[in-house]
Amino acid sequence: MIKTINNTNSKLKKKFEKILGEGNVLTAREDCIMYATDATAAGIDLYLPDYILFPADTVQVSEIVKIAYENNIPITVRGAGTNMAGCCVPFKGGIVLAINKMNKILDFDIQNQTIKVQTGVIVGDLQNIVEKEGLFYPPDPSNLAVSTIGGSLALSSSGSRTFKYGGTKDYVIDLTIVLANGEIIKTGANTIKNATGYNLTQLFVGSEGTLGVITEATFRLIPKPEQNKVMLVYFKKIADAANAINAIIMSKIVPSVLDIMDKTTMQIIEQYCDAGFLTNNDAALFIEVDGDEAHIQSQINVIQQICLDFGASEQQISATKEEKQKIWKARRSSFGAVAKLRPNVLSEDMVVPRSKMPDMIKKTYEIAEKFDVNISIVGHAGDGNFHPHIAFDMRDRQEAERVNAAIKELFLSAINLGGKISGEHGIGSAKAKYLKYSVDTTTLKYMKQIKSIFDPKNIMNPQKIFDYENK
Amino acid sequence: MIKTINNTNSKLKKKFEKILGEGNVLTAREDCIMYATDATAAGIDLYLPDYILFPADTVQVSEIVKIAYENNIPITVRGAGTNMAGCCVPFKGGIVLAINKMNKILDFDIQNQTIKVQTGVIVGDLQNIVEKEGLFYPPDPSNLAVSTIGGSLALSSSGSRTFKYGGTKDYVIDLTIVLANGEIIKTGANTIKNATGYNLTQLFVGSEGTLGVITEATFRLIPKPEQNKVMLVYFKKIADAANAINAIIMSKIVPSVLDIMDKTTMQIIEQYCDAGFLTNNDAALFIEVDGDEAHIQSQINVIQQICLDFGASEQQISATKEEKQKIWKARRSSFGAVAKLRPNVLSEDMVVPRSKMPDMIKKTYEIAEKFDVNISIVGHAGDGNFHPHIAFDMRDRQEAERVNAAIKELFLSAINLGGKISGEHGIGSAKAKYLKYSVDTTTLKYMKQIKSIFDPKNIMNPQKIFDYENK
Repeated sequence: MIKTINNTNSKLKKKFEKILGEGNVLTAREDCIMYATDATAAGIDLYLPDYILFPADTVQVSEIVKIAYENNIPITVRGAGTNMAGCCVPFKGGIVLAINKMNKILDFDIQNQTIKVQTGVIVGDLQNIVEKEGLFYPPDPSNLAVSTIGGSLALSSSGSRTFKYGGTKDYVIDLTIVLANGEIIKTGANTIKNATGYNLTQLFVGSEGTLGVITEATFRLIPKPEQNKVMLVYFKKIADAANAINAIIMSKIVPSVLDIMDKTTMQIIEQYCDAGFLTNNDAALFIEVDGDEAHIQSQINVIQQICLDFGASEQQISATKEEKQKIWKARRSSFGAVAKLRPNVLSEDMVVPRSKMPDMIKKTYEIAEKFDVNISIVGHAGDGNFHPHIAFDMRDRQEAERVNAAIKELFLSAINLGGKISGEHGIGSAKAKYLKYSVDTTTLKYMKQIKSIFDPKNIMNPQKIFDYENK
Repeated sequence: MIKTINNTNSKLKKKFEKILGEGNVLTAREDCIMYATDATAAGIDLYLPDYILFPADTVQVSEIVKIAYENNIPITVRGAGTNMAGCCVPFKGGIVLAINKMNKILDFDIQNQTIKVQTGVIVGDLQNIVEKEGLFYPPDPSNLAVSTIGGSLALSSSGSRTFKYGGTKDYVIDLTIVLANGEIIKTGANTIKNATGYNLTQLFVGSEGTLGVITEATFRLIPKPEQNKVMLVYFKKIADAANAINAIIMSKIVPSVLDIMDKTTMQIIEQYCDAGFLTNNDAALFIEVDGDEAHIQSQINVIQQICLDFGASEQQISATKEEKQKIWKARRSSFGAVAKLRPNVLSEDMVVPRSKMPDMIKKTYEIAEKFDVNISIVGHAGDGNFHPHIAFDMRDRQEAERVNAAIKELFLSAINLGGKISGEHGIGSAKAKYLKYSVDTTTLKYMKQIKSIFDPKNIMNPQKIFDYENK
């Protein structure tokens, strides 16, 4: 059902147009529908924004936000809208602040190995630009071909290579932020080290647009590894694959990627894009190793032996650029592939201490059976980061209820194993009601107080992270 | 002059003794004098605490802090007191909360490669413990033989290996914190990834004891590099050494350490501990490379060639454990060695974009000459992190004034080069009056508001970081 709030005010619209130019202010109903959702299967109701605004820079954002502040208009910042926790849904209407036109590279300092960008820059574009100079920006969310740096920062996103290289938070060194009242702050510096006052940079990373609008960001870069190879190692039993992961980690090898896929995921991807997966197996480890030729080979040798010891059935190694691109494309399409199965798909996200991955996988299959829901598994196994993909039809109320019950039990299972309810997708609106299980009441109280400092009128992405009663 | 505040209250003392046991509450004048200073040449006045308390765990800290909160007693948390920015000086008297007896390893999880410790654990001890299991905790402040994890966290300290491996902030994944009112919060998890609510962990790292008492911390660990070698490469001109650094970085080699020492530093260290430095040179690069044998050799080859191209005069390579220990001990004693020169020594700390190191070095010598002060230079050149050591006699008021003027100009020079006034020592009291040059007014305003949330009565390490008028 469309929940039209529709408060578009022609006077304000004109003000926005004066700041941004006419083409950068959308208010037509069809546009509002387009910008009402993100990649989350959040529910069947639509919450329409009143204005979709496309600013070009920090100053324009500040001017817009000042008007919003004066008029108590909620602001939902939106990058590519690939978020999976309902972070970009404008539940309270108001402004969708689309950062897509803020996509300039502001300063690529090759000598200092840093890059400063507007936050609408696409992650994959940033990677390509720096790689041309032999540098490397490792964070690689699955949707990096379209997702923005701003989204990565807001959600503290990471990806497959976090196991070896860390995530977005580990590369950002400076942010320019427009606060709820339009004030502009700068949190860091163009230096690698910095110990001057509180670390506001990291307070804003992962704050999901609830504290302010991040308009510019500077990242440190590292030299690009000489080369890499991708291995797929297959197992007849997923438990063996999970145990092999722990053995690889215990061997002190650090692959750049150590992911796991179950049979269902492989089958679905295979139907979708003909990746050449050996789908007669129960699970595959997706492993990338990097370094120089000799180092790559020595890592592969150790990994192969460990996997054989744990009963690996088959393996494939991709060495050419084309082979690697094909296999990576397949790996990154797991969400899109699952989405073909049923009308809706939830890509859940939880994290456990990595030694608990075998337990979490076992538990997930038990939950799938108990609630009769379709769950396929991919995970950044090396990090203990775990994505159950749940395909369902949310119009089927009974099935939707079973899915909700299964998700709750998945979260509680992760917490019982010493984990958390989000590793890299954030809390958004979808998980807000579960946050209390993952973060204690006292800590939550202080988080809310921090929110009230930066956003006293609660206009910055309201209804996100915290479980507001009156949603 | 001793500024005796002396408010020891026998009733409160008894309360503390009841919680901690008699031996863990010191109030004698000689003890108070012992705990009135840290490693900073902060001034000639002494500010005595009223109680020195040695809690054993989080619960005891919480009980103490509750009493302090009720009675408006300031709390200065103290580890080894090696701080160089006056962070452990109890300007307002009250409690010095010494964490030294909170030195238990709480959980060393080899499989997950994490370790949870009380924050009184000594950094070097933690390193030794994990290295026995083939794991690695890279952050290595110079004083790691005595300094505590709590100090490292409070000051966001790093060290020589930050260039390749990052600092304390890059390894901590969870904190247990006692807040000013005695409430206990837990900020993270025993997982590598975590995107559940605001990142309070990083807000407390580097907050210098002004927001709460960090009592427990969990760190992620990485596999220990197979081996390493230390090179000393000498140059007749320091400018050549500085330019060689940039060329090494541009070559995409990542040494684990890339430090610089000037002639004066080498000479002073040499007198102090007979390190075998070739002190007829103007500067030396202190370089450590790690990895497997082949990788180490290929890195050394590239570095040697670059250094020769930039006019290196001589080089030494330490390969045996004994040689490396000797050379590291010498490198880490730079502060202690300089301290032999004159009654006082200030180890300053600033950071510039690393390509600006040559400019910063040049500027430093100009400032030394302009103000007629004795400045020797060591620096984590790879990070652009720069420590001018200033030896002087603070009883000589004219010299002290020249030193202050020189320091101010050093800070402003770093800022002009795009840098910051602290890379790893923090702000403390010594640099509080300069923070306004390094962080803009609006950002500072929000930092102070955050302080007021966690510490509404301003009892947690008052007079630090921010420039309080009424010190």
